[in-house]
Amino acid sequence: MGEFDLIARIREAASGNGNVVLGIGDDCAILKMTPGYELLVTTDMLMDGRHFVLGQATPEQIGRKALGVNLSDIAAMAGMPVAAVVAVALPRNDADQIADGLQAGIQEMASRFGVSLVGGDTNAWDGPLVISITVIGEAKPGRAVRRSGAKPGDAIFVTGPLGGSLLCRHLDVRPRIREAQLLVSAANVHAMIDISDGLLSDLSHILEESGRLGAILDSSEIPIHADAYEMSTVDGGAPLDHALNDGEDFELLFTASFGDYERLLAVAPALRRIGEVIDTPNLLIRDTDGRKSPIIPSGFDHLR
Amino acid sequence: MGEFDLIARIREAASGNGNVVLGIGDDCAILKMTPGYELLVTTDMLMDGRHFVLGQATPEQIGRKALGVNLSDIAAMAGMPVAAVVAVALPRNDADQIADGLQAGIQEMASRFGVSLVGGDTNAWDGPLVISITVIGEAKPGRAVRRSGAKPGDAIFVTGPLGGSLLCRHLDVRPRIREAQLLVSAANVHAMIDISDGLLSDLSHILEESGRLGAILDSSEIPIHADAYEMSTVDGGAPLDHALNDGEDFELLFTASFGDYERLLAVAPALRRIGEVIDTPNLLIRDTDGRKSPIIPSGFDHLR
Repeated sequence: MGEFDLIARIREAASGNGNVVLGIGDDCAILKMTPGYELLVTTDMLMDGRHFVLGQATPEQIGRKALGVNLSDIAAMAGMPVAAVVAVALPRNDADQIADGLQAGIQEMASRFGVSLVGGDTNAWDGPLVISITVIGEAKPGRAVRRSGAKPGDAIFVTGPLGGSLLCRHLDVRPRIREAQLLVSAANVHAMIDISDGLLSDLSHILEESGRLGAILDSSEIPIHADAYEMSTVDGGAPLDHALNDGEDFELLFTASFGDYERLLAVAPALRRIGEVIDTPNLLIRDTDGRKSPIIPSGFDHLR
Repeated sequence: MGEFDLIARIREAASGNGNVVLGIGDDCAILKMTPGYELLVTTDMLMDGRHFVLGQATPEQIGRKALGVNLSDIAAMAGMPVAAVVAVALPRNDADQIADGLQAGIQEMASRFGVSLVGGDTNAWDGPLVISITVIGEAKPGRAVRRSGAKPGDAIFVTGPLGGSLLCRHLDVRPRIREAQLLVSAANVHAMIDISDGLLSDLSHILEESGRLGAILDSSEIPIHADAYEMSTVDGGAPLDHALNDGEDFELLFTASFGDYERLLAVAPALRRIGEVIDTPNLLIRDTDGRKSPIIPSGFDHLR
């Protein structure tokens, strides 16, 4: 194997958690999961020029992000991550240095969340960098929180400020694993998603999957990140629009009963109640005078 | 989502097996595995120009191969496949037609082996086609066959003829799932791998992982595929060299006691006993006169 075999490097440095029966180095990894728990599986592929720009982002940041976005999906189900496999297509000319950085970033993120790196596939080619990670997690039976459980009358919550992540924050994904655990212990979370495409787009996913529901958002309650203001000085867009539509915030967006607000706030200090679910398939925003107007998601489309 | 969203298409057409609690459409899939079993995980990434050439291979063939090589890894552990997730980077210009073919190929292979397609990630870009699949399988505790169990004195077996797969056969992967199940029911299989890099390379993996062992192969016992002869008329290489070094045969290579030969042959009619494991780290080939000479693997290197 070449010096830039990312997977061989990870094998040398990796220390497995208690779930790993057999790690990197065979045809498959072997895992022992918690008896009786359900298995969670998620996969995300990141491509140079699409989800990062190699040169602007370091390989280490890219490695962290590649694992981070997958962990964020586990968080969105209120699951606990267990193991990950990594497949990469490395640009041949700089494969060694890129593999170095990816490894460091992936392993930092993995150890921060107790995730074992148990397998992968390294390839070199003349194309741009592609990295694809699959994470396996687990949850108590029936306790994983789906997108489809929102009910008319639910309050809509978000765990932190939004918008402008493209300035830099999108490379510093902070998967809300622990926050999700705290939220589901504090109250009955009906539906949840992580904000990757943008608040409005991801809210639309919840509403659609919950049976063509709608929502009214209160414009004054949308938490706007400092980066969204920064972004608006660059591109002239309104900070609120950045908060509503910029993707890759990786905060949790969820619905629960209005009455659970205090309980949820107690475990998630940055929590904001931003609106309510309605039983007609309309997405509306309410200004401080109580006037409602329709809004259309313009968030990130991976197929654009 | 665009019309060429591969994952949305798979969602519409997919029918899950009994393990699927929640399929495509949420942040993660939810699976219920067989209680007490161990989990197997494997991942493989295929890139245009590297593992196939789009135009020479149809998207349908590429889809079949992408899932097939992963299933072959599950077979190599004598595991049963359960579910798969698929991530793709589609060339923007032809994304629709490519997604169509990939879907057909992946689903054909999935239904042939009872594998549920439970998640994925579709992206479009200006680069070449990349497809990365992760398969989850299972095995009874302690029953997955590793690469590391070969012992000096073991016989070395291969399940079918080798060489020349690049002519066409590499696009028609036949994962030996059922064959592996039959072999481990018939006898104690000590170490196993699927032939992807080439017989000598993959045998070296077994010998290395089993503790720096070696092997003597009998040249007259190596099963040579008709394609290897065909290939030799094209490139002038000896058919035996093709059988020893060409990759992507996806037959099973394993070791077991000499005394188990008949038992194994009874369940695998194309089985050939090709040599024996020795306790020194040398790879030797023995001709029909009994003369032994060292051989060096020159198989496929994914980092070349």
